[in-house]
Amino acid sequence: MEQHPKEKTAIIIGAGLVGSLWAVYLNKAGYQVAIYERRPDMRRNKISAGKSINLATSYRGWKALDAVGIGDAIRKIAIPMYCRTLHQLDGTKRFQPYGNDGQAIYSVSRGDINSKLMSIAEEGPGTRIHFDEECIHVDLEKGTAIFRNAVDGKMSQAQAQVVFATDGAFSAARYHGFQKLDRFNYSQQYIPDGYREILLPANADGSYKLDKETLHIWPRGRFMLIALPNFDGSFTCTLFMPFEDDKHCFNNLDSKEKVRDFFKEVFPDFFEMMPEIAVEWDLHPLSSLAIIRCFPWTHGRYALMGDAAHATVPFFGQGMNCGFEDCTVMNELMEEWNHDWPAIFKAYEQRRKPNGDAVQDLSLQNYIVMRDKVADPDFLLLQKIERRINFLYPQSYFPLYSMVSFTDIEYQTALKKGNEQESMIRDLIHDNTISDLTSTEAIDSIIHDYIGIRL
Amino acid sequence: MEQHPKEKTAIIIGAGLVGSLWAVYLNKAGYQVAIYERRPDMRRNKISAGKSINLATSYRGWKALDAVGIGDAIRKIAIPMYCRTLHQLDGTKRFQPYGNDGQAIYSVSRGDINSKLMSIAEEGPGTRIHFDEECIHVDLEKGTAIFRNAVDGKMSQAQAQVVFATDGAFSAARYHGFQKLDRFNYSQQYIPDGYREILLPANADGSYKLDKETLHIWPRGRFMLIALPNFDGSFTCTLFMPFEDDKHCFNNLDSKEKVRDFFKEVFPDFFEMMPEIAVEWDLHPLSSLAIIRCFPWTHGRYALMGDAAHATVPFFGQGMNCGFEDCTVMNELMEEWNHDWPAIFKAYEQRRKPNGDAVQDLSLQNYIVMRDKVADPDFLLLQKIERRINFLYPQSYFPLYSMVSFTDIEYQTALKKGNEQESMIRDLIHDNTISDLTSTEAIDSIIHDYIGIRL
Repeated sequence: MEQHPKEKTAIIIGAGLVGSLWAVYLNKAGYQVAIYERRPDMRRNKISAGKSINLATSYRGWKALDAVGIGDAIRKIAIPMYCRTLHQLDGTKRFQPYGNDGQAIYSVSRGDINSKLMSIAEEGPGTRIHFDEECIHVDLEKGTAIFRNAVDGKMSQAQAQVVFATDGAFSAARYHGFQKLDRFNYSQQYIPDGYREILLPANADGSYKLDKETLHIWPRGRFMLIALPNFDGSFTCTLFMPFEDDKHCFNNLDSKEKVRDFFKEVFPDFFEMMPEIAVEWDLHPLSSLAIIRCFPWTHGRYALMGDAAHATVPFFGQGMNCGFEDCTVMNELMEEWNHDWPAIFKAYEQRRKPNGDAVQDLSLQNYIVMRDKVADPDFLLLQKIERRINFLYPQSYFPLYSMVSFTDIEYQTALKKGNEQESMIRDLIHDNTISDLTSTEAIDSIIHDYIGIRL
Repeated sequence: MEQHPKEKTAIIIGAGLVGSLWAVYLNKAGYQVAIYERRPDMRRNKISAGKSINLATSYRGWKALDAVGIGDAIRKIAIPMYCRTLHQLDGTKRFQPYGNDGQAIYSVSRGDINSKLMSIAEEGPGTRIHFDEECIHVDLEKGTAIFRNAVDGKMSQAQAQVVFATDGAFSAARYHGFQKLDRFNYSQQYIPDGYREILLPANADGSYKLDKETLHIWPRGRFMLIALPNFDGSFTCTLFMPFEDDKHCFNNLDSKEKVRDFFKEVFPDFFEMMPEIAVEWDLHPLSSLAIIRCFPWTHGRYALMGDAAHATVPFFGQGMNCGFEDCTVMNELMEEWNHDWPAIFKAYEQRRKPNGDAVQDLSLQNYIVMRDKVADPDFLLLQKIERRINFLYPQSYFPLYSMVSFTDIEYQTALKKGNEQESMIRDLIHDNTISDLTSTEAIDSIIHDYIGIRL
């Protein structure tokens, strides 16, 4: 790659969450940044595709935002959720704290945070976002990209020292560039489940219909409903369920009556809050969910970041956080290698690929936890003991959820360690015949004898 | 789909092996067939990409050819190979028959068989092959495709009742159509190994430098060389090896000297026949090898067949045979469902997908057998016993290789059964402490007691 030490230029394809944040980083590092975004400016046209799974910002996200001094701007549009509230079929509720001492994950609207990040990015000198520009061709070696303007159909070509494709799960840059490379490994695997959003409105007085500072889950084994709070008193709810199944599935809910009966039967407390559910049902589309894996992530002057490199299913709330962590890592390497992009790219993909794979495995694993295990007595006992271990050894033992959400331990390490810890606790329960009736004192004593010596 | 009972029309994208054969089937069934091929007519321009792994036609291939009466035309350009000849490092040879009673697989040149199939297809009334036509857009629902002529750049659109994409591993129809469908599962995984061809010429008098009616293998553990006979006395040889490895790999062979030393060291008998190997080395490109899996295989008026649906690595010699079997199955279903294409397509993909997956698993598995296991004493003992079982129970026991190559037992069944048989024989060896020294009589007796009762 030629060196242009005096004029540092970068193209970012995709002004989504990762692209907008990465523009802030690059600008601080002295780059002229041209961002090309396929969609119109979301800040002017409040058009929503109806797909907006509220996002949960956690440690890795905040770290990446704070490093460029914009964490506080985002905190203003984020609502802390300190625990899971599990809604059981009989209407009873159960609370599971996410962490200790006020640790929380933060509900943000995807549209709000994206708009905010775009505006912050645009404040950077030499950063410009070009909207309505669809990427239709790339040359990975030359660092060029061709865009077609959706409004006037005009074509334009851009070139820069380095190009970052942050254009999401169905990345055009990946499709037009990487997918044509020899020996590019690629897979897109859809899970059998889809999702549909439902907006649970605020009460007439603007108050919340459910506790605000918590993530609500209605776990039902093979499917689940979740709800995350918005600022206006509403909740963005999402039903995750198989498309096709013997029992409950999306393909069976093909009439208003069936939708109503389904909610009455399996989410009676929710139905009571929202008896008009069948009317609202079609306002949001039924969407699919995929895991996308590929390698390499970089070639020539191009690098894939965020979902373009490692799109995942949303069940660990780590899609955005992992993408933001890509920025943290890329920035560290940019400093370490002093803008030597071939070296940065190589180190980036070697360091991040195993973590991209791990966050995908974690996401799939956590779907089972959320929809099923959180209602399983054996798992609840396991969690209770784990919380006790964490309480007794707060500096040396972190539950898997905490490692992922409240630290920046590498995802691959968290995955491995988390699964080891789970089997260790299963052994402890088994070897000591612990049950729900065992006293906390007895459990603590077992933990000290059994775990303490290993930590 | 509309019905056109009076005028049956089909488009085939790709005039390769499967496309040309399927055109013969469709024509016999009364279809007007338009074939579009990206490349020029190979019969006029003897241009080769230098990539031509000779193909081994086996039972499934012959069955599909014979069913439309063209097997004999192909037999004229095929050389039977009755066994594997293993070339050991010390220069000794070992022969492993492929089957019983003259069973053989048949070496054919890809170019020869493809040319012949095209000519046969073109004899069909209403069949035409359009060359130099690159597919650049498809509409799966409407059954249309847009082509760009490579010579004059002209665009044309075609439409038919049904469209078959037989355009290979990197199918344009799949790329432009199926890959844009929601919930289309897709993966392309490159193996760490590549291949390079070498042409071993005939002797000056036109005679063969190696035994003719056999497939030659130089198994070397992590890599191997193979040779298949051609009619002119030459052999098409292929070296399969990792791109990157601690020891022997393609990336290390970056000078004529290294190539020469490599062959001298690991294939001394081959080097003796072809001391000019280092000069020939660059005549053929280094190529990569991938497994491509996807689903669904049909949508709207389109179906994927052959490599476009299930491209595999070449180590079981089943790529063409499996593609030809797609024709057998599609034809059976066409008759069974009386040209009701939505029903045919559904049945086709349900029946063939598990077999496409299985042939890929078999191919990967057989690479290990060919390059490594055939030289492993434990495996050789296993094979010896298996041949004995097959000899004693020829009607009820078929080795895996025979099931795949000499029957049309479904690939998925062969894979499952073959692996079960292997562990059965391992148990038999272990439980009866059979060794290479055990007499055939004793082995037969054990086989009767142990296997006979299970068959």
